[in-house]
Amino acid sequence: MARHGIVTLLTDFGIRGPYVAAMKGALLRHCPAARIVDICHDIEAHDVLQASFVLAQAAEHFPAGTVHVVVVDPGVGTGREIIAAAFGQQTYLFPDNGVITMVAEAQPLQAMAVVRNPKYLPSEQAVSSTFHGRDLFAPLAGHLVRGTRITDLGPMPETYKLIDVSKPFYDDDEIVGSVVYVDRFGNLISNITARILSRRWPDPNDAEVLCDATPVGPVRATYGQTDRGQLLALINSMGLVEVAANTGRACDVLGAGVGSEVRLRRRTPDPQRPAR
Amino acid sequence: MARHGIVTLLTDFGIRGPYVAAMKGALLRHCPAARIVDICHDIEAHDVLQASFVLAQAAEHFPAGTVHVVVVDPGVGTGREIIAAAFGQQTYLFPDNGVITMVAEAQPLQAMAVVRNPKYLPSEQAVSSTFHGRDLFAPLAGHLVRGTRITDLGPMPETYKLIDVSKPFYDDDEIVGSVVYVDRFGNLISNITARILSRRWPDPNDAEVLCDATPVGPVRATYGQTDRGQLLALINSMGLVEVAANTGRACDVLGAGVGSEVRLRRRTPDPQRPAR
Amino acid sequence: MARHGIVTLLTDFGIRGPYVAAMKGALLRHCPAARIVDICHDIEAHDVLQASFVLAQAAEHFPAGTVHVVVVDPGVGTGREIIAAAFGQQTYLFPDNGVITMVAEAQPLQAMAVVRNPKYLPSEQAVSSTFHGRDLFAPLAGHLVRGTRITDLGPMPETYKLIDVSKPFYDDDEIVGSVVYVDRFGNLISNITARILSRRWPDPNDAEVLCDATPVGPVRATYGQTDRGQLLALINSMGLVEVAANTGRACDVLGAGVGSEVRLRRRTPDPQRPAR
Repeated sequence: MARHGIVTLLTDFGIRGPYVAAMKGALLRHCPAARIVDICHDIEAHDVLQASFVLAQAAEHFPAGTVHVVVVDPGVGTGREIIAAAFGQQTYLFPDNGVITMVAEAQPLQAMAVVRNPKYLPSEQAVSSTFHGRDLFAPLAGHLVRGTRITDLGPMPETYKLIDVSKPFYDDDEIVGSVVYVDRFGNLISNITARILSRRWPDPNDAEVLCDATPVGPVRATYGQTDRGQLLALINSMGLVEVAANTGRACDVLGAGVGSEVRLRRRTPDPQRPAR
Repeated sequence: MARHGIVTLLTDFGIRGPYVAAMKGALLRHCPAARIVDICHDIEAHDVLQASFVLAQAAEHFPAGTVHVVVVDPGVGTGREIIAAAFGQQTYLFPDNGVITMVAEAQPLQAMAVVRNPKYLPSEQAVSSTFHGRDLFAPLAGHLVRGTRITDLGPMPETYKLIDVSKPFYDDDEIVGSVVYVDRFGNLISNITARILSRRWPDPNDAEVLCDATPVGPVRATYGQTDRGQLLALINSMGLVEVAANTGRACDVLGAGVGSEVRLRRRTPDPQRPAR
Repeated sequence: MARHGIVTLLTDFGIRGPYVAAMKGALLRHCPAARIVDICHDIEAHDVLQASFVLAQAAEHFPAGTVHVVVVDPGVGTGREIIAAAFGQQTYLFPDNGVITMVAEAQPLQAMAVVRNPKYLPSEQAVSSTFHGRDLFAPLAGHLVRGTRITDLGPMPETYKLIDVSKPFYDDDEIVGSVVYVDRFGNLISNITARILSRRWPDPNDAEVLCDATPVGPVRATYGQTDRGQLLALINSMGLVEVAANTGRACDVLGAGVGSEVRLRRRTPDPQRPAR
């Protein structure tokens, strides 16, 4: 395990109550040298899909060997398993509810275990039925940060859960995707990757973007190329087609949100201005 | 003092302005090795009771010797004293306004001082009348993290403030408590402990829970045992009777909140189905 | 560079999405020993003025040599430069959009560079056009924390941007300022400093404060001297005239906000009560 001791937390606990701090306290009690970094604690309650997106976009930028702990866990207290896995250079600890889906799509699996080894599990008396973040994930993360190997935590699972994530498809020669995330700037982030786009149109400038049937122009390189407030489309920092409004909120301008259609079609050349 | 150097902060400063960061900066200036962990900065402004609950639920999970600094302090600039104390394995620094009440009810007092030793107090010129978090609590916390003993900070106070916290009581053979906290999931957390419950009904399944007179069923072990959206009651991770709705918001379903009645009565056995 | 390795972040990314964590991950990847402290991530989107105020009020309290990274950057992807500078004892890394204004007004400039040295800049392929926080500021901050000198990052700029910040002025023998910030307690913080006030009225008690023409009384020393809910004015912890309401929200009581007038005039002595 990496010497840096970095462990991230991604939960839907919210930052107003005692839950996040109780979990951090328990983690530090098991591993006082851990260096905790918050990914986010304001995932919509029980929104496994949103958590999956945020996790995939944030985790891969951390130093190799970082332990990422995810507790968005509507099934707490039921029989769902806890899984530890390495994808790419990162280690993940998460409930087996599909929250790992977008990481698993982007990074190669290196190792995986369903956590069952009693040596690393607290006694049943020490585990509440409703707060596994504090009682199970925190001590297990402490073990991983201190160097316990994933394969020591339990056997390879036969299968693990993936959730249905909408995929872009071709409609004749158009590409049809959808908004998967709206960020705090009101930018509408779609599931259409730069790779899909470039396979059809090597010059992204040849493609015109429509969001819920409203044309928003060609794919540009940056927010700054348009007038203030104007809608535009670009390949964003995640490599995804994004609909934005220069210093404005595209989601409000368009009345669009998660699930809205994002469609790419061949751009009609601008008509020449008629000579007078 | 513990070598881990962990110090937590609990304030009502909010996370949008410069106050929390100014306090952290001042603390790190006095003790660059301090490792700061946020408990919460979104306590309702001046809500000493809410702060007391969050503190008691979060602090005890930290490593022994952690310094917990509380600045929910409507009396800043008046004559209220600052107190340093050890309860259980934790150290606390707080204004003498009752915010320590729920910690003091749960953990044994080990040491206490009212902070008056001029050796550890900044000069009057360096202390604003309105921001003691930055000007007094931060340097004092720095001293505690670096190893100054509580008893060096001043004399044992003759008394310290506790606030009136509502307690469950018996009404004939029923237990009547109230909601003391609503978490971000909309769960209604009462002041009825598992211990009080088990003294009356050794099998919690024998008790039926009512919230503001609405029956919510017996005390269950986990959220997952009921249908989606259904109300239920359980002993939560804090050891308190909680009214919840499976993947829903009990506070909205019931129109209940802090102060709502939570009543436990003997469960009427399910009537036998009549034979036909 | 300071051995403590402390680096602060001030952004308008919000805390709900993956952006802050992606930037922290990138920073830790470039400098695993960095100790990251959040100043605030909830600056209103693109509000350079608000960011400037929060930065100036928070940064100077940190240990000497702290690196403060500011990414409130509506011009990302345009030609705006990135600047590294030392003011007073602190180091700053920021887009050249005026966000440094209030720091520059308060602290002496020690060193400055416009970041252009290719040795410290990532390759163009590694830099998105929309997320310079992750792709440029994070690795540059890593260099600064690890000891790279400001002057190594590029040449001294010929000029750098400052924004127009409203200043108090004299109207006959009255001082006319305005509200520049409203904090979470609803306190109205003006741009009138204790120094300006004391030049006109050595005893602040001689001055009466009006906010949008409503008298709020003399300048007091603390919140606690008035009745609950009563309006008052005081010199706050930043050395600025502030209009507050004791345990209430002055902004709501007065219907005031950023830009509201704060006026100081000679206090009329209280009339003697007539003898009967």
